[in-house]
Amino acid sequence: MSIIVQKFGGTSVANTQRIFSAAQKAIREAERGHQVVVAVSAMAGETDRLLNLANEIDPAGSPRERDMLASTGEQVSIALMTMAIQKLGRPAVSFIASQIDMRTDARFTKAKILSIDDANICQALNEGKIVVVAGFQGVTDNREITTLGRGGSDTTAVALAAILQAKRCDIYTDVDGVYAADPRIVPKAKKIPALAYEEMLEMASSGAKVLHSRSVQFAAKYNVPVQVLSSFEEKPGTMITQEAQTMEDVVVSAVTHSMKEAKVTLSGIADKPGTAAAIFKFLAEKNINVDMIVQNVAEKDSADISFTIERADLPYIKKYEENLRQLIHCRNISYDDKIAKISAVGVGMRTHAGVAARMFDTLASKGINILMISTSEIKISCVIHENYTELAVRALCEEFGLQEEKA
Amino acid sequence: MSIIVQKFGGTSVANTQRIFSAAQKAIREAERGHQVVVAVSAMAGETDRLLNLANEIDPAGSPRERDMLASTGEQVSIALMTMAIQKLGRPAVSFIASQIDMRTDARFTKAKILSIDDANICQALNEGKIVVVAGFQGVTDNREITTLGRGGSDTTAVALAAILQAKRCDIYTDVDGVYAADPRIVPKAKKIPALAYEEMLEMASSGAKVLHSRSVQFAAKYNVPVQVLSSFEEKPGTMITQEAQTMEDVVVSAVTHSMKEAKVTLSGIADKPGTAAAIFKFLAEKNINVDMIVQNVAEKDSADISFTIERADLPYIKKYEENLRQLIHCRNISYDDKIAKISAVGVGMRTHAGVAARMFDTLASKGINILMISTSEIKISCVIHENYTELAVRALCEEFGLQEEKA
Repeated sequence: MSIIVQKFGGTSVANTQRIFSAAQKAIREAERGHQVVVAVSAMAGETDRLLNLANEIDPAGSPRERDMLASTGEQVSIALMTMAIQKLGRPAVSFIASQIDMRTDARFTKAKILSIDDANICQALNEGKIVVVAGFQGVTDNREITTLGRGGSDTTAVALAAILQAKRCDIYTDVDGVYAADPRIVPKAKKIPALAYEEMLEMASSGAKVLHSRSVQFAAKYNVPVQVLSSFEEKPGTMITQEAQTMEDVVVSAVTHSMKEAKVTLSGIADKPGTAAAIFKFLAEKNINVDMIVQNVAEKDSADISFTIERADLPYIKKYEENLRQLIHCRNISYDDKIAKISAVGVGMRTHAGVAARMFDTLASKGINILMISTSEIKISCVIHENYTELAVRALCEEFGLQEEKA
Repeated sequence: MSIIVQKFGGTSVANTQRIFSAAQKAIREAERGHQVVVAVSAMAGETDRLLNLANEIDPAGSPRERDMLASTGEQVSIALMTMAIQKLGRPAVSFIASQIDMRTDARFTKAKILSIDDANICQALNEGKIVVVAGFQGVTDNREITTLGRGGSDTTAVALAAILQAKRCDIYTDVDGVYAADPRIVPKAKKIPALAYEEMLEMASSGAKVLHSRSVQFAAKYNVPVQVLSSFEEKPGTMITQEAQTMEDVVVSAVTHSMKEAKVTLSGIADKPGTAAAIFKFLAEKNINVDMIVQNVAEKDSADISFTIERADLPYIKKYEENLRQLIHCRNISYDDKIAKISAVGVGMRTHAGVAARMFDTLASKGINILMISTSEIKISCVIHENYTELAVRALCEEFGLQEEKA
């Protein structure tokens, strides 16, 4: 008997009526002859309500206690979901992380899943029950309660699907699939019927908010087919698998944007071996993640280096500016938090040359200056001024045919 | 170093401001040189909010899932309380039931505590931390989550005090102690400075709502001094100990009332050995608790028997009326749910004769008919028509001197 894992996000369980509707989806899969495991997020607004209480007490409150607090939201949802399934006539049982030993490391508020004990789940499934598991939460070796970070319930669901060797993991959400661009910017953006894991990964890490990026890593590692689909409409969503079966010869699958980054430029640093290493070792020690890096020789024996970091880390790096300056003897340090990163993603780039040129041409034709460039095998990212974000995304969607044909 | 256990009820942690105020009380005891363990209830209104959600889904929802749901309220409180203590500069750590192995039986929604593993608590105390424990909740041998029933956080606190051999268990609440009668009925009712466990037990089981009655059983069994006091006012509360040190020669300590009972009368039953046994065996099998029982021989070979049950069980016993009738061949079964039980409680009764007579006289002088009587060594209870409840309580308070002298 094959197993289907379903994940319902916060808007899909926002009230008891929607919980019943989600319960019906679980029952429908059970009636089709599948064993069903459901991972549930907190009811929409609940996590914010809890964290607001925490912030009233101490915005810098202990991460351990924040996880103790925030993990209750999912516990509420699983109890209600299980009652709803039972009320509709199907046996069901709920489990919190500690009951299925959803083991994580001890990095509170952003823990990583290490292992799951599937004994209780399998026993309940074999008794004919639908199993409802709390998303987002985990336990450490010492029975401490952790959470997986925002969007972590996706990862819970995919991890369950992996360990249970599920046929499919269905992520029910308030959108009906993954779009080729943010529909708020490009209203006619195409829905993508199928994506490869690596495309989804590049999209998630370059600004697409549909899936938690660790959930995609899990899916890729364990080869779990993931479907993103709507809780509210009955239509096929986006299937994410090893090698997406695309109908056409798609070069660029999606254009994403992110305005969460800031650019840091160190000018007039000594152009000698070891300087870059010193900079990025220093940042790593401060737990500041660096995304893109560009270096160019500006003058004789002197170079400029620019890199992007999370915008939220900007006050943090400014605090250490003097240390950094002394470390590498640079002439000047400047910051720019008015930037956007625009990316074109697609496995088709592997076999199609000239995508980068088309992207740069398109931006140039709109008068958009490119501040930084970085590329991977299936992605090209450009940093531009954030004022041009929408213009750039729209122009690239047009260039790469990512909008629905006008009906 | 001696240990103080503090318990804060729902109104004492109703918002973040009150949580800070409770946190200060914990810190104050720590500053006095005690090790402090705090047991916390859900924020006022939270348990109701959760159970309303459950009722929207299924008023008869699975008790296991109701406990899964309801236990989250206390988890929220302990996280917030711990953050507040930390914010005020003291180290603290929170524990849910599973983290301290607060083991209970598996009777969901009304579980009983079996044992507690104090290792984590003692370690944290020895590290100088204030320990904050979730009230109301437990775990079974199978890691199932249970709750102890309404008011169960009192029992959590006293059980912790017992296992930790605490010097005292302070129950902080929205009243400033235990009163000789319900102040809503007798506004000038005396606050009782000291009570014996057995008095408090009789009071709790005969209608006084201050303490969860199992918590008093625990306190008596392990000889834990319990103090009931106000979260909002700085004044001594009521001390409950093995032998209360009363200043005066008090005969009756308190007058309580309960309107939660109903009377059932079986008329014309065979007056032969075994009939009563058959009736109460039948009720026990149906899990219907019987409180008072009165039997009198009405005619030759025929008797009447009356007993009181919880009013909430009335629909349930009516459902089995026909079975009961056949079992004992009674002529008639009648019900009365318009009754009240009025009790006078006091260890002084042991050494003072004539208390019962004074009670009956007082009721008679107000024209109140007594429907049933039951007595214990330190309590006399009378069932009367519920319309006379306030009149009876006031008259008895006057008779036994339970009101403050007029200032």
